[in-house]
Amino acid sequence: MTLTIGIDVGGTKVAAGVVDEDGSVLVSTRRPTPSASPEHVEETIAAVVTELRRDHEIEAVGIGAAGFIDDQRATVLFAPNLVWRNEPLRDDVAKRIGLPVVVENDANAAAWAEYRFGAGMGEDYLVCVTVGTGIGGGMVLNGSLYRGRFGIGAEFGHMQVVPDGRRCGCGQRGCWEQYCSGRALLHEAREIADVQKEYGARLLALGGGEPEGIEAREVTQAAIEGDRAALDCFDEIGMWLGQGLADLAASLDPGVFVIGGGVADAGKLLLEPAQRAYAERLTGTGHRPLAEIRLARLGNEAGLVGAADLARTR
Amino acid sequence: MTLTIGIDVGGTKVAAGVVDEDGSVLVSTRRPTPSASPEHVEETIAAVVTELRRDHEIEAVGIGAAGFIDDQRATVLFAPNLVWRNEPLRDDVAKRIGLPVVVENDANAAAWAEYRFGAGMGEDYLVCVTVGTGIGGGMVLNGSLYRGRFGIGAEFGHMQVVPDGRRCGCGQRGCWEQYCSGRALLHEAREIADVQKEYGARLLALGGGEPEGIEAREVTQAAIEGDRAALDCFDEIGMWLGQGLADLAASLDPGVFVIGGGVADAGKLLLEPAQRAYAERLTGTGHRPLAEIRLARLGNEAGLVGAADLARTR
Repeated sequence: MTLTIGIDVGGTKVAAGVVDEDGSVLVSTRRPTPSASPEHVEETIAAVVTELRRDHEIEAVGIGAAGFIDDQRATVLFAPNLVWRNEPLRDDVAKRIGLPVVVENDANAAAWAEYRFGAGMGEDYLVCVTVGTGIGGGMVLNGSLYRGRFGIGAEFGHMQVVPDGRRCGCGQRGCWEQYCSGRALLHEAREIADVQKEYGARLLALGGGEPEGIEAREVTQAAIEGDRAALDCFDEIGMWLGQGLADLAASLDPGVFVIGGGVADAGKLLLEPAQRAYAERLTGTGHRPLAEIRLARLGNEAGLVGAADLARTR
Repeated sequence: MTLTIGIDVGGTKVAAGVVDEDGSVLVSTRRPTPSASPEHVEETIAAVVTELRRDHEIEAVGIGAAGFIDDQRATVLFAPNLVWRNEPLRDDVAKRIGLPVVVENDANAAAWAEYRFGAGMGEDYLVCVTVGTGIGGGMVLNGSLYRGRFGIGAEFGHMQVVPDGRRCGCGQRGCWEQYCSGRALLHEAREIADVQKEYGARLLALGGGEPEGIEAREVTQAAIEGDRAALDCFDEIGMWLGQGLADLAASLDPGVFVIGGGVADAGKLLLEPAQRAYAERLTGTGHRPLAEIRLARLGNEAGLVGAADLARTR
């Protein structure tokens, strides 16, 4: 049996695991992401590989990182949360650990995992949207992970959906992820709590009496309990999810959408308004087959599992 | 030498030609599109094939049609301008002419032609946007024509760019083609002529004193002559072109965009504002290679040439 290591490098933590050919994680570990320098992150990556290799024969290592990765899957061109600029991550890590290394965008790796082992198994035209703090995107087209000409495709969260809309961390305005994400959910909840104090009383209480005190998981909890204002928040970002999926379908015409990320833990509270908006707003609706919209199945481990599998099939 | 026939079926005319392996059109013909019934259109297609076969040995026939074509490239699912609904065009025509037939969306066929013989030669990640009355789209990804899971991808003109925006023929609102097309150009020109009579005097004169009398080619002519109001119209739709390309690049990350269609006859009047907006509005701009934006080279024949080549490589 061939084993590979998958490593998911995020802004706050480095998660790694030994993964087998069926996508099962045999053993895993995690460390905080060192904030100081790219070199410290590479040391941490090397350290988790050393730890995981102790009891397993490892063939290769896949790294999923939140950033633009070049078309050689070697260099991180730009990673806002990791202070990486044109960082030759593949070669630097390979030199430290003496194993083949593949670097991939984290959301691409997660999409690949859902295609191989998760909600998109057997679907050769698959678009994954990860709704977390922002939006991550990945897609499998005709059975291959799609990377684009320069390696930086599938950044769906930065399609403009509102001209001159809300500011985005990417430097633009009106990006999709400002209307459909954990951040957008909080925007809605805090606005309701601020300006509709009676209607938003439950949300305001969860925030300790301050709109700014409300957290995303509390909005989800209130919505699950049936709070109308919290449900409104999900209706709003779910509508934007469906609208964005309709825009993606106009171009990509996938067979299945897979929705993951922390906000998707709300399940049908997010999916039902998204499915409604998608079916209403898709161009040519009524004259075409509709892509199915499914929840992701691999959870937080998707990036790690996908990176490991991409290292195996490198 | 293998010869095939390409046929471009539009709302007003059926254009056909004999095409060789280099994409050269050896002989061509055209007829008005019969409006009455799908059967009459098929009779016309059979008639042009009979005419063109007289002096050439033909191997196969490719048909480009303005509509949703299914993933078997056989059935027209929906064609608003051709009154086709679930029309088994491939088999009906093949029965009439006794040759293999391939049916393709007209804008997909045009994109394929630009990839094989035109402005996108050698570019394996190519996105074509045809700016005519509306917007047609086609793309070549990793060297293959991209059709999507159900055959109806690349309908770029129906991404929503303005929430609750202008009505679109597809039944939705705010579609890209309502802001960047011949129709959008007229919308701008007529509005200026209507509400800024002095500034728009030249446009108004071209319309015979009536805003509704202005035609798209007159706006282009006035812009070429340097009329400020007409140039404003191109700046506006050019900005929307660049914005839409930035949205497409976020997902597709192509190496080259090819812009065709009647409105692109204005050349740099359209392309320069588009290039500016694209470079400004692309997510992560400054940290990524920029796709080049080029004018199409094959003009009106692109659809016909592409359909013929797809029939050859069927």
